Formats: sequence, structure tokens, C-alpha cells
Amino acid sequence: MEDFKEIVDELDELIKKRDYYSIKTLLKDIEPADLSLLLQEFPNKIATLFRLLPKDLAAECFVEMDTDYQETLLSSFTDNEMKEVMEELYIDDTVDIIEEMPANVVKRILKNSDSETRKTINEILKYPDDSAGSIMTTEYVSLDEDITVEDALKRIRRTGVDKETIYTCYVTKPDRTLLGYVTAKRLLLSDDEMIISEIMETSVIYVHTHDDKEFAAKEMSKYDLLALPVVDQEDRLVGIITVDDAIDVIEEEATEDIEKMAAIIPSDKPYLATSPFEIWRKRIPWLVLLMLSATFTSLIITKFEGNLIIDGSTVLIAFIPMIMGSGGNAGGQTSVTIIRGLALEEIKLGDIFKVILKELSTALLCGATLAVATFAKLFIIDKWILRNSEIDIFVALAVSLTLLVTIVASKLAGCLLPVLAKRLGFDPAVMASPFITTIVDVLSLLIYIGIATSIIH
Amino acid sequence: MEDFKEIVDELDELIKKRDYYSIKTLLKDIEPADLSLLLQEFPNKIATLFRLLPKDLAAECFVEMDTDYQETLLSSFTDNEMKEVMEELYIDDTVDIIEEMPANVVKRILKNSDSETRKTINEILKYPDDSAGSIMTTEYVSLDEDITVEDALKRIRRTGVDKETIYTCYVTKPDRTLLGYVTAKRLLLSDDEMIISEIMETSVIYVHTHDDKEFAAKEMSKYDLLALPVVDQEDRLVGIITVDDAIDVIEEEATEDIEKMAAIIPSDKPYLATSPFEIWRKRIPWLVLLMLSATFTSLIITKFEGNLIIDGSTVLIAFIPMIMGSGGNAGGQTSVTIIRGLALEEIKLGDIFKVILKELSTALLCGATLAVATFAKLFIIDKWILRNSEIDIFVALAVSLTLLVTIVASKLAGCLLPVLAKRLGFDPAVMASPFITTIVDVLSLLIYIGIATSIIH
Repeated sequence: MEDFKEIVDELDELIKKRDYYSIKTLLKDIEPADLSLLLQEFPNKIATLFRLLPKDLAAECFVEMDTDYQETLLSSFTDNEMKEVMEELYIDDTVDIIEEMPANVVKRILKNSDSETRKTINEILKYPDDSAGSIMTTEYVSLDEDITVEDALKRIRRTGVDKETIYTCYVTKPDRTLLGYVTAKRLLLSDDEMIISEIMETSVIYVHTHDDKEFAAKEMSKYDLLALPVVDQEDRLVGIITVDDAIDVIEEEATEDIEKMAAIIPSDKPYLATSPFEIWRKRIPWLVLLMLSATFTSLIITKFEGNLIIDGSTVLIAFIPMIMGSGGNAGGQTSVTIIRGLALEEIKLGDIFKVILKELSTALLCGATLAVATFAKLFIIDKWILRNSEIDIFVALAVSLTLLVTIVASKLAGCLLPVLAKRLGFDPAVMASPFITTIVDVLSLLIYIGIATSIIH
Repeated sequence: MEDFKEIVDELDELIKKRDYYSIKTLLKDIEPADLSLLLQEFPNKIATLFRLLPKDLAAECFVEMDTDYQETLLSSFTDNEMKEVMEELYIDDTVDIIEEMPANVVKRILKNSDSETRKTINEILKYPDDSAGSIMTTEYVSLDEDITVEDALKRIRRTGVDKETIYTCYVTKPDRTLLGYVTAKRLLLSDDEMIISEIMETSVIYVHTHDDKEFAAKEMSKYDLLALPVVDQEDRLVGIITVDDAIDVIEEEATEDIEKMAAIIPSDKPYLATSPFEIWRKRIPWLVLLMLSATFTSLIITKFEGNLIIDGSTVLIAFIPMIMGSGGNAGGQTSVTIIRGLALEEIKLGDIFKVILKELSTALLCGATLAVATFAKLFIIDKWILRNSEIDIFVALAVSLTLLVTIVASKLAGCLLPVLAKRLGFDPAVMASPFITTIVDVLSLLIYIGIATSIIH
């Protein structure tokens, strides 16, 4: 962070002095990810600065930039400049950029690509947004099964420079059916005369173009893959997903789940680039829905408040928020644990009985702890020490018992609802804390009223 | 899933028939990650089945197994068998396994490793649990700067078979100081006579052994690295982190943040392998703490309930859960967004004023929406249509206005608390929904009582 501020200041100085030679020297050794952040600090000079970069660094830096800046740059490019940058990009990055650009910019990009690239881009653009096909690259190394290791290495040397990875090479039939793969490591460690079909691995993990990209990323994580082949409906190889893109998907999906758990409609736009109005649109639907469902609690309280008033004392009513809060927290703990377990496939649908048993036992432990703590607090501190006349053993019993039952009910709801959602084909993440809280609020009120009525009246 | 059940059944048949030849043929083509799951389905036969695997597959499968099964297997191994498996493992995997085993098993593992491996294991074990050093492997390819590409490729062919990755080779001085790196791609695409120092990259991203492993994983994700060098305090290369381990860290850290956000003390044990008592220990501290802090709300209600009762009508009290719930949800949305943004470094501490401004605008939009919706509902549906005599314009106004102010206060608390925690050096994730909810409960009650008192009385 300190370094970054220093470089920003240094660049600022150099820009003021118009010392373009020094700027060039300064910029050329910065990592693309850092360079993009640096250039974005100078929005008015971004096109000028960009033109000072060597061609390959310019392209790598361009990929890392925020969409707004990419658009600014693209609009400032001449056709020739655009062509130069586009030629340096890997095809999956080009597609990512195109997906975010307005129509007129897309038109110009396509106009300035060669016809083969244009065709590939259009192919990839056809895959649904969340599919494996949408994040794959078509630039991979493919080998025939009957060539030697020596020929394979020659082929890699000849064609490898434009490929995003050369470390996993795919062995295909002439019609592009996937036969197997061979890693660069295997190639380098094998004798030159060996035939590819003798050394290739034939049990290949692959996905289809229309599989979910989250599934693809999970397969790569599960099998520790650097690249994952993507095949079409006829099992012909059409592209590969590289591990850096899989990491992005894993991070995005975790963020999405976290947002859903917090009752937010997920968005893939960075927070700071999102307008308050857009944020409002992502947050208000759940707020309204949860508020409306919370009016049930008002209804219940209005209808049964008589049961919670003893000889004119409203002491029981004062405990409602504490009981609801504890139930909500306990249910939230469970639901979030189960949702994450389902997402990471640590918990499968078939484990439901194990899960229920575990949560039931945990709930009894947690509920008993809270009940005993509350009973002790009410009976010893409030009644004996503070001599609060509104608290008696029945009040203490009613509140403690309610806590116990509420915690058990909340934790059961917390594990059943996500599993139920999953079984019905919904995303379990939606069943997280706020949703559980609303259900638990109603449950705990009913439990409280029931227990209070039978103990006290 | 279907396939998996079929294979389990097939294996079960073969075991009953004692057809070891077919079992061997069946198992040898299964991916290690799947194979470990398959063997774990036969806990009583696991040692027998394991002995049928080819050596390298056995080791890869062993790494993927759950700790309990690894322990079972290790106890059943003869010294010779243990030696064979350990020799096939990469050093970072060995260390991972050792960290989970009881002392007597660790002793046997170390006894059966050669002295150099034993020394390396002991070195790595010294690094703190969350450090980059603890997840690195010491098996990387290092090159001298003055050799040719041809010699480098020869060296890789000679020594590469035991290395976890050969795709990034590190150029070091004789005292192991890191000079640069060269990728296998670069080597393959360069002329044989080129000298390494001419083609190596000298601006290297690296971490120190004691850096946080989360930081290391983030660097790998940011710079799209397949391997990240780890250096000691004297800047000498001691190991590398490979991208598959970085993915595991990224997933673990997301899970940890999610658990913290749900008021659970994180644990790295898989849920299904954790006993209810252990789960209780991870959940009860926050539940008790939040319950105790919620007693504030009881105190406030008891003290001010007079202000919420109009001419004997308790209608205002019935809205408390709805107001608290909406405040908690709104605050939770904000805190979770900010916490995740901070974790992914999309939001920096310096952005605090932008964040406050954005949340304030969003809060006004959300608050106004909820207030108008509630006012309309109370005034049009409850008062006009349902003719509820307890609702008048003052009640509707008090509730709506409270909602507006509560949402704004909640969202401000939701963005300020995580940022404050981060600035003070705490983990922002702890400031998530349940914590915010408790604060918001108190805030919203005070706001409600204040507004109700000034409007109605």
C-alpha cells in the first residue's frame, strides 16, 4: 500500500514534467494487476499513459481494468490501436470484455478482429452466462495420438506462443473427439521416440459447454487441475477452462452465496462502481418481503398479548426481543453451516438424517445452556439480589423453557429448510439467516405464548 | 452420483466374491479424489483394498482421504508399507497429514522417512498454522542463471519427476537468494542456446514464510500465478506454494468468514466429522454473549413501555419485532457487503467516505420505500378497509418514521463497524449480522420510543 502511494506520486510528478521517457521506464516493470490500478488513478491521462506501454503489457493491463476504464480506452483507440490490443488478448478475455461493452463498442471490436476470431467470439457469446462455455478459451494445444514426443514438443514450440496454457495438451481424433491428455511434464520426462498414445492419460475429467461454470470450477478444485477440457454435445473438444478463471468463479460464487445469505440479490458489479439506486434494487425486494412477513408477529402479539400480561404486569413482553434474537441467531448458525456444507459438497442430501441428529443434539446442548443461564440470571440476580418483584419462579421458568424449545425449533428449521430448498431445486443460500429469522420470530412467539399460558395462567 | 452408487455396488459384489483381480482392474482407473470416497465406503476392508492399488495411485488416494481413515490405514501399515507410501507423497502433503495425526503415529512416520525428508518436515512444522510456510512444498525446480536453455531442460528432465510442479522454475544464486523465474513455456519456446539470465523474469512476486497464507493465496489469485515462491528472512528461497493449495485456502477462508458472519467460531474440521459437543463449543459463546446483550432491549422496554401505551392500547408494542427485524436485515445487508468487499480488497480503508455516502443514499432509498409501504398498509388497509380503531394517522406516522430512521441508523452502523474493526486490527467478519442485529435492536427501540413519544404524547 505504501509503495503504491509512492508510485502514484512519482507518476504524478513525471506527468506534470511531461517526462514521457521516464514514465515509460517506470511503467514497463509493473505487474499488470498493479499497473491497471495505477493507471486508473489518472482517469484523464489514461489513454496517453496506455500508449506508452509495450504491446504485450498493454494488453495484459487492459484485461485487468474496470469496465468503465476499458470503455474509455476503447473509445479513444484508433482502429489500428484496437486491432493491436485485440490481437494480444486471449480469446476468453476478449469475450469477457465484449460482454460488458455497449453495442457500438462491440461492433467496432468485432470489425477490427480477423474473421476466424470473430467467428470464435460469436460462438462463445452464444453460451449462457453461467455456463462452462462462457468462460472457456479456444486457444489450447491439441495433439494427434500417433505422433512422437519429439514431434509433440516441436508442435508446442511452433504453436504454443499464442496458447493460454501449454501445460496440458489434449489428444484428439481428427474430428476433435477427445481421446486423452498429456501434460507438458509427462512430455518433458518421456523419451523423444515414445508415441503420444502410449503415454497419454485416457481417463479425462471434462465438462460440457452448457454445464454450470460453478460445477466446472469445483471439478478443477476437486481434481487439482490446471486446465479442464470443455466438450460439445457430440463430445468434441471446443475449449478449455484455465485455473485462474476457475479461481475467479470460486471467489464470485462465495460472494454470491454470502450476498444471498444476507438477503441481497447478487450482483457481479464491484460495490464501489454500483450506484445507490442499483444497490437499492438489489436489497429492497427482500427487505419488503421480510417486513411484510414480520407483520405476522405484530398480529400474533396483538391477538395474544392478554396471555403475556399477568395481573397488569407486562414483564413477559419485555423478553420477546431477547427470545426472538436468540432463536434467530441459533437458527442462523445452523442454516449458514448447512448451506456452506452443501455448497462445498461436504454435506450431501443423503446425509439429512445424520445432520438432523447432529443439530438436534447441538440444539439441546445450546438450548439447555441458554436456559440455565437465563434462569440463574433471573432468579439469582433479578429476584434475589435486585429484588425485582415482577420476577417470580414462574416467569423465570416460562422464559427459560421458551428459550430451550425455541433454540431446538430454530436449529431444526435451520437445517431442514436449506436441505428442503436443495431437494426442490432452489438455491439453499436463500434460506439463510434473515429468512430463518422471520420464521423463527413467529415460531418463538407462539412457543412463548403457549408456554407462558400453561405455566402461569 | 448415480455412477458412484453403481461402482460401490459393483465393488461390494467383487469383495463378496473375493475377486481381487477384478477389484484391482476396477480401482486402477478411478481418479484419486473419487477413489478415496469409494474406499471410505468400506471401512472394514479399507486396508485390504488399499493394498491392491498401484503405488503412485495409492499415495494420491491416501492424500485425499479423511483424517480418521488415514489414521486407520497408517496403523495397519507395516514399516515397509509406510515407507513406500511416504516416499510417493509430496512433502507439503506429508506435513498436512502429520499435523492431524496423534503423536505415536507421527513418531512412526518420521522414523520411516529418510533423514533429509525428516529434517524438511520438521522445518515446515515449525511455521505457524496460518502462515505461508505451513502450506508450501520444498520440492521445486531451481536453476542457475548462467546455464543454457538446453541444460535447463535437461535438468528438468533429470530432477523433475519428484517435483510437484516443473512449470515455474526459480533462478537462484548459489546461496539460494531468489533472482528470478522462468516458466516451462518460456523455456520450450526459447532457443536452446539462450542463457537463463537472458530470458528470466526478474520482477518476482513472492511472500515470506511468516506471511499469512490467506495473503499468499490472494497474491496468487491477483497475479494469476500457478506457483508462488516463499522466501525466508534472508530472502533465500525455501519453498513454493502451488495453485491447488491456494484454491483450498481461498475456499477455507470464505467458509471461515461465513462462519464468523453467522456468529460461529470457525473450525477447519468437516461438519459431518464434528461431534455435537464440539459444535456446541463453537456456537455457544456468541449465543450467550448476544443473549446477554439482548437483555438491554428487555430493560429498555420495561423502563419505557409507558411511552408506547396510548390510552391503554398496546398497539405500538406489537410493531417492535417488525421494526427490529427490518433494522437487523438492513444493517446485515450492509455489514455483509462491506465485510466481503474488505476481504476481497474491493473496498479499502481509504474508501470509507465513498462507502458512507453510498450507504447513506441507499439507506434513504430503502428506508423511504419501507416507510411509504408501511404507512400505506396501515392507513389504507388497516384503518380504512379493516377499520382497525387502534390505528390512527399518528400511529402510522410514528411507525413509518421509525422505520426510516432505523434503516438509516442500521445501514450506517453496518458500514462503520466493520471498517472500524478493520482499522483497529480486528477481523471485520465478526461485526456481521448477529452483532449488528443486537446493536440495531437497541438503537431501533430508542428511536421508536423517542419518535412515538414526541408524535403521540
